[in-house]
Amino acid sequence: MPLAVNIRPAQPRDWPQIWTVLEPVIRAGETYTLPQTMSEDEARTYWFQPANEVFVAESEGKALGTYILRANQQGGGSHVANCGYMTAPAARGQGIARAMCLHSLTQAKARGFHAMQFNFVVSTNAPAIKLWQDLGFREVGRLPQAFRHPSAGLVDVLVMYRLL
Amino acid sequence: MPLAVNIRPAQPRDWPQIWTVLEPVIRAGETYTLPQTMSEDEARTYWFQPANEVFVAESEGKALGTYILRANQQGGGSHVANCGYMTAPAARGQGIARAMCLHSLTQAKARGFHAMQFNFVVSTNAPAIKLWQDLGFREVGRLPQAFRHPSAGLVDVLVMYRLL
Repeated sequence: MPLAVNIRPAQPRDWPQIWTVLEPVIRAGETYTLPQTMSEDEARTYWFQPANEVFVAESEGKALGTYILRANQQGGGSHVANCGYMTAPAARGQGIARAMCLHSLTQAKARGFHAMQFNFVVSTNAPAIKLWQDLGFREVGRLPQAFRHPSAGLVDVLVMYRLL
Repeated sequence: MPLAVNIRPAQPRDWPQIWTVLEPVIRAGETYTLPQTMSEDEARTYWFQPANEVFVAESEGKALGTYILRANQQGGGSHVANCGYMTAPAARGQGIARAMCLHSLTQAKARGFHAMQFNFVVSTNAPAIKLWQDLGFREVGRLPQAFRHPSAGLVDVLVMYRLL
């Protein structure tokens, strides 16, 4: 049964909890194009950059996931949203990413976005690809050897997209 | 016959010349996802952001084009370069963009990049698409309705890519 999670806008005071989600994902370096050695301060600046809306998924006061929502481009591209999701390693397989993505689709529609784009889905990240496909995203691009995976070496990257 | 152009790293003092190239492209809003109303200061901050190397293509002391070179992603994606090129409207059709792209491919290889990616090639920009294809780039993705063109409305966007 999926875990009951509450998803809400994050506040600066949520950072210590959010960092417990981000740190293992960044250190693993398998899914995000962030330096594995990124400091906590750099990560906070990156996740809370002014253009991002930050959300946190929590259960019993503990953050299990976090995501950011923003316009993927400015100007003539500003009607396309972009999100990035991270789930705490210990909370995987419990529907957290699915809940966050569904939440983000609703939020994006409410803000008037016309589509959502994921710029960089690492092709070795099979659970994510399956989930995004389940939620209506399709592969609209494939970038050859665009990601250097810590153990798999150079692997392809997918661009995934859906209209809202 | 192609115009003789000199391409070199830009200095801050080149800004007034570079702005004569950028301004009409930004105001037209047909090829870049920048707000058409972007101020000169915002444009300078955007073009000269710390991660960018900026180059200028000039002839007889006048800027005819400019481009930026950077890593398209951090971390595991930092081996893929990204460039953005702008040509002064009055100098189009004279091989300036081709010369800048060839220059950028050499520069990117010299910096050890493994590939080059263009994230956002508006599908109505036929001369650019033809040029990038001539120079070895291929369409690896197509983003449906991802650009709001000032006169054509919602149009597709291509992702183009080549190994170096």
